[in-house]
Amino acid sequence: MPRAAIMTGPGRPIEVQDRPAGDLEPGSVLLETIYSEVCGTDVHLHHGRLAGVPYPIIPGHVSVGRVVEVAGEVVDIDGHSVREGDVATFHDVHETCHACWYCQVARAPNRCPSRKVYGVTYGAEDGLLGGWSESIYLKPGVKVIPLPESVSPDRLIAAGCGLATAIHAVDRAGIRVGDAVSVQGSGPVGLGAAILALLSGADPVIVVGDPAERLATARAFGVDHVISVSETSPTERVEAVRELTGGRGADVTIEATGVPSAVREGLGMTRDAGRYVIVGHYTDAGEATINPHTDINLKHLEIRGAWGADFNHFYRMVGILHRHGDRFDWERMITRRYRLDEMNEALGDVEHGRVVKAVVEP
Amino acid sequence: MPRAAIMTGPGRPIEVQDRPAGDLEPGSVLLETIYSEVCGTDVHLHHGRLAGVPYPIIPGHVSVGRVVEVAGEVVDIDGHSVREGDVATFHDVHETCHACWYCQVARAPNRCPSRKVYGVTYGAEDGLLGGWSESIYLKPGVKVIPLPESVSPDRLIAAGCGLATAIHAVDRAGIRVGDAVSVQGSGPVGLGAAILALLSGADPVIVVGDPAERLATARAFGVDHVISVSETSPTERVEAVRELTGGRGADVTIEATGVPSAVREGLGMTRDAGRYVIVGHYTDAGEATINPHTDINLKHLEIRGAWGADFNHFYRMVGILHRHGDRFDWERMITRRYRLDEMNEALGDVEHGRVVKAVVEP
Amino acid sequence: MPRAAIMTGPGRPIEVQDRPAGDLEPGSVLLETIYSEVCGTDVHLHHGRLAGVPYPIIPGHVSVGRVVEVAGEVVDIDGHSVREGDVATFHDVHETCHACWYCQVARAPNRCPSRKVYGVTYGAEDGLLGGWSESIYLKPGVKVIPLPESVSPDRLIAAGCGLATAIHAVDRAGIRVGDAVSVQGSGPVGLGAAILALLSGADPVIVVGDPAERLATARAFGVDHVISVSETSPTERVEAVRELTGGRGADVTIEATGVPSAVREGLGMTRDAGRYVIVGHYTDAGEATINPHTDINLKHLEIRGAWGADFNHFYRMVGILHRHGDRFDWERMITRRYRLDEMNEALGDVEHGRVVKAVVEP
Amino acid sequence: MPRAAIMTGPGRPIEVQDRPAGDLEPGSVLLETIYSEVCGTDVHLHHGRLAGVPYPIIPGHVSVGRVVEVAGEVVDIDGHSVREGDVATFHDVHETCHACWYCQVARAPNRCPSRKVYGVTYGAEDGLLGGWSESIYLKPGVKVIPLPESVSPDRLIAAGCGLATAIHAVDRAGIRVGDAVSVQGSGPVGLGAAILALLSGADPVIVVGDPAERLATARAFGVDHVISVSETSPTERVEAVRELTGGRGADVTIEATGVPSAVREGLGMTRDAGRYVIVGHYTDAGEATINPHTDINLKHLEIRGAWGADFNHFYRMVGILHRHGDRFDWERMITRRYRLDEMNEALGDVEHGRVVKAVVEP
Repeated sequence: MPRAAIMTGPGRPIEVQDRPAGDLEPGSVLLETIYSEVCGTDVHLHHGRLAGVPYPIIPGHVSVGRVVEVAGEVVDIDGHSVREGDVATFHDVHETCHACWYCQVARAPNRCPSRKVYGVTYGAEDGLLGGWSESIYLKPGVKVIPLPESVSPDRLIAAGCGLATAIHAVDRAGIRVGDAVSVQGSGPVGLGAAILALLSGADPVIVVGDPAERLATARAFGVDHVISVSETSPTERVEAVRELTGGRGADVTIEATGVPSAVREGLGMTRDAGRYVIVGHYTDAGEATINPHTDINLKHLEIRGAWGADFNHFYRMVGILHRHGDRFDWERMITRRYRLDEMNEALGDVEHGRVVKAVVEP
Repeated sequence: MPRAAIMTGPGRPIEVQDRPAGDLEPGSVLLETIYSEVCGTDVHLHHGRLAGVPYPIIPGHVSVGRVVEVAGEVVDIDGHSVREGDVATFHDVHETCHACWYCQVARAPNRCPSRKVYGVTYGAEDGLLGGWSESIYLKPGVKVIPLPESVSPDRLIAAGCGLATAIHAVDRAGIRVGDAVSVQGSGPVGLGAAILALLSGADPVIVVGDPAERLATARAFGVDHVISVSETSPTERVEAVRELTGGRGADVTIEATGVPSAVREGLGMTRDAGRYVIVGHYTDAGEATINPHTDINLKHLEIRGAWGADFNHFYRMVGILHRHGDRFDWERMITRRYRLDEMNEALGDVEHGRVVKAVVEP
Repeated sequence: MPRAAIMTGPGRPIEVQDRPAGDLEPGSVLLETIYSEVCGTDVHLHHGRLAGVPYPIIPGHVSVGRVVEVAGEVVDIDGHSVREGDVATFHDVHETCHACWYCQVARAPNRCPSRKVYGVTYGAEDGLLGGWSESIYLKPGVKVIPLPESVSPDRLIAAGCGLATAIHAVDRAGIRVGDAVSVQGSGPVGLGAAILALLSGADPVIVVGDPAERLATARAFGVDHVISVSETSPTERVEAVRELTGGRGADVTIEATGVPSAVREGLGMTRDAGRYVIVGHYTDAGEATINPHTDINLKHLEIRGAWGADFNHFYRMVGILHRHGDRFDWERMITRRYRLDEMNEALGDVEHGRVVKAVVEP
Repeated sequence: MPRAAIMTGPGRPIEVQDRPAGDLEPGSVLLETIYSEVCGTDVHLHHGRLAGVPYPIIPGHVSVGRVVEVAGEVVDIDGHSVREGDVATFHDVHETCHACWYCQVARAPNRCPSRKVYGVTYGAEDGLLGGWSESIYLKPGVKVIPLPESVSPDRLIAAGCGLATAIHAVDRAGIRVGDAVSVQGSGPVGLGAAILALLSGADPVIVVGDPAERLATARAFGVDHVISVSETSPTERVEAVRELTGGRGADVTIEATGVPSAVREGLGMTRDAGRYVIVGHYTDAGEATINPHTDINLKHLEIRGAWGADFNHFYRMVGILHRHGDRFDWERMITRRYRLDEMNEALGDVEHGRVVKAVVEP
């Protein structure tokens, strides 16, 4: 019987339990987990900051595993059959309804009220529907993405949730070749956004974050300038970005911090008539103060929220890792690997920024 | 010698003075003022809330007059010669440089640092460069728009600055046929935006404002629903808009209030993945509080600032007044006409919302 | 046993046959047909111009009927239960897969290879899956749209397929208030596009078409100018549109003719840096000649194809008919009603332009 | 007295003549030419294929030189003074009027009727207004771009007109990270577009062109796949691109050939709901045949013309050359350098594809 790390409730310790795998419905797939990850959302889940979570749950929304069983015929989006032995990831967001006003009229399936997310919206009683487990059950309809040989499980999980989310943010940003891009935040989403800005031809790419190791990682990836948050004041950071961008500010700024006060700072870093993407506020971290005149109206600015990541961002992530596998040392994002019985420690390490990415190796 | 109403400085009374007309440079035009207007910006000017204003000034940025002299050949944008006797308006924004980074690289001439605005950035010593005057001197290069017979001076000034600004806001909003639109504010910009939403096929159009007369004007224009600010709480307003839009909120909300607290309220009135245009914060009215998670990121929202009005908005305004002259009782916007020696009273009436539009009749 | 008009094969007469209704699967709905329509596509089907059609078929893709049976719980997109006695239409495009590259990565579900269309891609043996029948079987998942009382069956079918398709075209066109719009074609799609251009605030709206009755209908709808194809040469038409648009051409031209030679003419009618939408070439009518230099590159033009109509266009159509029911005499589009045994005559009338819209009343 | 190569008329030999430099107006700049180029447009000029050219002319629209005289104060777009000794390029398009309907209402200054182009629309009698000359006179208002030390004159001219034009094309294309891009043509515009696609994160980048040396250059730049036009049929090329793009076709295809028959082929290479940019038809090379149904409507495609290059493309070109100077062997584009008395030979070499880029070294 597979073992899983269970988040039994907000603020309570993670427990390792045996959980039954159950039978496979037609069209489902069983994965033997190779890796899952601990992302900032898991910390928020542990603090009870997301509404409607059916604790106890098996966390872990982005994962990679080996296919050990396929119930009937399952095809990937390119029409290829999924086979036993394939190494694969899958889109954690499942069951958008294709039938509601948001799916059909607004064409914003990421706002579908029926949306289900592995590791977040399923209870542990619903099955092995999270990655902090030796096995993961992919329900019929979950979109499986077999990995090409060029994309190792380590590379996939190093990119993981952060890169898929960053692809969404960068799509929203509309970076043109030569645009100046500043990124607020140096966690997985921020570093992913910085890499994508480089891949999009941005010039310069500036990362504003901390601690020093993360900024060193950013530099190793080719980021032009890094600004340490702990060594500067907000005004100094805004001034620094302006100086690096001809006095005007960045064409595009991407917020990947989740810190409310970063918003006004980021608006100040952005040039008039530029674009500001908010992707880091996946959970409610409180209120922010802005000045509608100086920050938005007079600046003729656009602010764009980017919620979650759709399948197309996951799918394209694998293509990007395949293409640019050698250009960036992706695995450098992985600071440490944790066993299922170390998840309490992993959550603490992520929360306190002691690691860039904490990988779960069940 | 023409008489002009001079704003000598922040907080000081408006004075009527004789001002020399001076000689006409080649390419310039002299207008005998028919109407100018008192818009909210003039109140802000009188409070000293705009930076870099060279008091004393002749206020009045949007005006209409009769051409009394043309120095040489002046053509309008359609290639027709401007002639003595023409009734004309002109684009108050002048001398964007066509040579700076904002004009050329960002293609945002409304952010050109060399931008000059009649009635705002010229001193009274620079000439008759404001509409609160019996004559207006149109420098070479100022874009003159002769009015077709169908557009009377009354109709033009009734629409005025507010409608041109609203065209800009509505362009930014990207309204599609059938979109639900809520407008915050029932001054000239708000009413203009509401009319334009109707003309763009929006359904429903909701105006949130005050006082009762303005809301009655909105209803007379065909607005579907009006919500009185004085009779409701912010929560009630948000709920009211949601109820009128299938529980989801408006596809598009246009902020035309200049009140910082309206921003968060307006975000709440807007549906997930919708658009929010901030056009009312032309001056600094202070800070606003938002929640980056619930208001922007989770909502997958876009916020777009709209600064000022470009020539194309002025030009298209005349076309809209020509086309839809009979559909709306535009002149209803004009509450009262003021002589040059009544400008102190006019400023007070605008500031306290006692009039929708105060027209200057020198 | 319901009677249906069967298209047995290309070029063969339509036959009326009794067809079994079969049992209702859970989630399905049975409609008693009130109206269906004969659109240009049906003529193309009868000529065998669409690939992969499984003759014999029951034609009729857009229809309206009365709900006579609901198998279990079926909800519309706004979450309301569909009930017996409701008058309803439905989206004829069914079973986009939500799982293929076009649905998920390109986000172009109208290009989903699994797309099924009532009246087109289902064989008569598959069930009552077309509107030329006394009953229509709505399979589970078909999106039902109950009509509000304000939208009568006559009004819905008068708009029908043409208006939904025109909404798609107009969305692609991106009409701004005051844009000059020319429409090529005066069939249901062309007239629908003209109405939508009027509703979007276009000025002027020009329809280029024939015969005289259709142009009279366009005028009755409020179109500013009509140009008869039979009374003018291509050069004259291009010149006429240019004269009506300040010598420049229309900001937007919408092609709704299905005639290849119209394309170059339409490009000529469109101003430099304008937009040209091709929606009329739903079937293969042969090749067209263009000049890539003068028609596209030098003109800095955009050409946008618009394929079919998505659910959101159907849904919004009902809203538009509700809102603007009194502004346009929609029913004027219906030239004649046909019984099931008159469908051969109906096809001929549509093919030869003897009717604007032929309605089927089983 | 400077010597210049004069194109005296269509089909007539180029003559080298002494031409007077004249006096400098205030705000003008005199350049000692380092390099100019022979681009495809010059061949077209020599064949008389552009309308309204005031022969005799001094060709050469994109050039680089050393500032030998500045008449008064001239500043670049970043506000820095232009000084004697600076190495600089300039935007060949001059005198868009900022006052016409296209400049102001359509915001398409590239369609301004007053547009003047160095080397194309000025006669030799108007002064040294072309690059095939020992000196170039930059009229007041011509936008000068001093080169940073990192961008040598060789690198600038290697990129030249082609890269600036390609930036415009790629802007229009809207490439996202991971998009598959095919480029038709392997001249300077095509190779420039391929480089920019690589810089934008495209995957794969495919170049369809000839002859073998150009394709080898493309491969050396990092292009993933090249397809030789001389060794394949149109059908084979379309099939090849589809095979390289998962069977669907490229997300984006950029036409940079100037060959009318390439258009239909390129549409076939592009996936449904993709984008096709036509930039290669700068002159009239005749008509093309397309099928509006299969190529555009059914494909739900967008076609976008890209006319010329605006200042912002020139400005950003210098930034791109600065940033990516080491990543690409730009100078490889320069096949041969020609003296003023070799221009007849140079034109022949360009016309017959014997060189990628012919550089003029006066």
